[in-house]
Amino acid sequence: MSLVYQGKTKDVFKRADGNLEFHFKDDATGYLSDGKPVFNAGYDKVVGQIPGKGKISCKFTEYFFKLFEEKGIPTDFVGIGSAPNVMIVRPSNLLGVANQAGQYKGSDEVYGLETVFRNEVMGSWWRRYPVQVPGKRIAVVEFYAKGKAGEPDILMVDDALVQLGMMSQTELEATKSRTVQIAKLMYDEFMKRGFHLVDGKMEWGRDQKTGQIVLIDDLSPDTFRVCENFDLDEEGNCKVHEQCIMTDYKQSAKFVKCSNCRDFVEIKEDFKRTIEAKNILSADPAGLKKLAEAFKLEI
Amino acid sequence: MSLVYQGKTKDVFKRADGNLEFHFKDDATGYLSDGKPVFNAGYDKVVGQIPGKGKISCKFTEYFFKLFEEKGIPTDFVGIGSAPNVMIVRPSNLLGVANQAGQYKGSDEVYGLETVFRNEVMGSWWRRYPVQVPGKRIAVVEFYAKGKAGEPDILMVDDALVQLGMMSQTELEATKSRTVQIAKLMYDEFMKRGFHLVDGKMEWGRDQKTGQIVLIDDLSPDTFRVCENFDLDEEGNCKVHEQCIMTDYKQSAKFVKCSNCRDFVEIKEDFKRTIEAKNILSADPAGLKKLAEAFKLEI
Repeated sequence: MSLVYQGKTKDVFKRADGNLEFHFKDDATGYLSDGKPVFNAGYDKVVGQIPGKGKISCKFTEYFFKLFEEKGIPTDFVGIGSAPNVMIVRPSNLLGVANQAGQYKGSDEVYGLETVFRNEVMGSWWRRYPVQVPGKRIAVVEFYAKGKAGEPDILMVDDALVQLGMMSQTELEATKSRTVQIAKLMYDEFMKRGFHLVDGKMEWGRDQKTGQIVLIDDLSPDTFRVCENFDLDEEGNCKVHEQCIMTDYKQSAKFVKCSNCRDFVEIKEDFKRTIEAKNILSADPAGLKKLAEAFKLEI
Repeated sequence: MSLVYQGKTKDVFKRADGNLEFHFKDDATGYLSDGKPVFNAGYDKVVGQIPGKGKISCKFTEYFFKLFEEKGIPTDFVGIGSAPNVMIVRPSNLLGVANQAGQYKGSDEVYGLETVFRNEVMGSWWRRYPVQVPGKRIAVVEFYAKGKAGEPDILMVDDALVQLGMMSQTELEATKSRTVQIAKLMYDEFMKRGFHLVDGKMEWGRDQKTGQIVLIDDLSPDTFRVCENFDLDEEGNCKVHEQCIMTDYKQSAKFVKCSNCRDFVEIKEDFKRTIEAKNILSADPAGLKKLAEAFKLEI
């Protein structure tokens, strides 16, 4: 086996039979506070390990990819490998477009197509369209391409996917309706176990043999917003949103040191909307453990 | 007649018969350089007047709104008023959604729905998806809601329009296909006169009497990118893009004065893509005059 890619959450190997192996790791990202790691999937830097995390990610993905396959949604899943943190998948190409404008400064490739499903008004949906009550039940699918390091993910309007040649109109509609189906399946699976699934994202690729668009990569538990202690009305709207969800709109500031003196200069940045919910399971050991117990992912 | 709204480019009056009158002004936005106005539609501040601008905007809108009506595209146009810079329109409601989440900080209404058509890779399309050769022929329609002062316009994915209740799926598809039709009609009208229409935007509203979605506001010449001295291949791709279009990707910097000393501190901002074309007619008097002559808008 040869190492293909070394990532923060998994290493990828090429097998002799042509398939790939994902080796999930216990490494977790976050930041340091007083020298101690605070785990947070929103950060890029590995600050420590959460024992069992790799195994749980692997089993979580296995659980759902098998369910999706049963329901007719194609995935790259082949099976579990020689250890419980190892998953075998068929090779796929990332969906994207090579840079066609290399002579232009700032031109770039666009690769890595994800769909996001939203069962509830939260996150960047509310920040972009701050008009609805947070926690309100919605049913939306969006497409994103992965942004370059340091740049945000790129919102893909439907027309752009076809116009840029990332997928055909038929593939777009199939991928959207499969994401709707996945949202429903996952929502029900979480609800059965006493959790409310708010939103989540997944990546799609093109199977190298068949050319078909399939669900790829892994379902990382920390990319799903999952609520506990929720209370929903008959239509699925969150009833405790005012106790649980906090928003803000403020101008952040940073302090920059004057080079010729010892003074600090305060720099006001743009106004930004933020939205956070208290009842969300995070990627910290406690949240992950709750998920693992609910889905019986520990071995 | 009562004044309803006083804007930078026009004042709006309510007529006794219930219709509205747009009184287009010669005022033009831009910035001052050595005390002299440099006109640029991208700026928000009125820095002077371009004689005839109001009349040209009015006649330009009249020319195209009449053409669109002939071709079956509904508009709010009634007729020209008592002066050549006055247009009479039926009252419409802006498309949008009232703020439903007033108790949340940062919540806001979303109003003012525009479509953008793109015949060519340029502007924010390239900045968002910097993968295609600038000047390449495309055919795309996007929806935007107007951003609040100081915030950028809000890209509306198709699902959001329906989910937020701005329009129905049927209305969305009709508005999109009408924008495609407008793009084609305007492209041909410009091409006949020796100009190449790159992209443009227009606003839609809901007719207060019929509830139908109609083209509203005015077609401001300076919101259309129009090329002269162009050279297109058989498929409509720009052949002189490398001589005409310049892109960049750089970190801008600003200098902030230290409060306790007399030193300036350099603040690096985020990396940004820019794209500009030399052959674009601008809103300056010369560009506007060329358009007016081509469409015989002077009286």
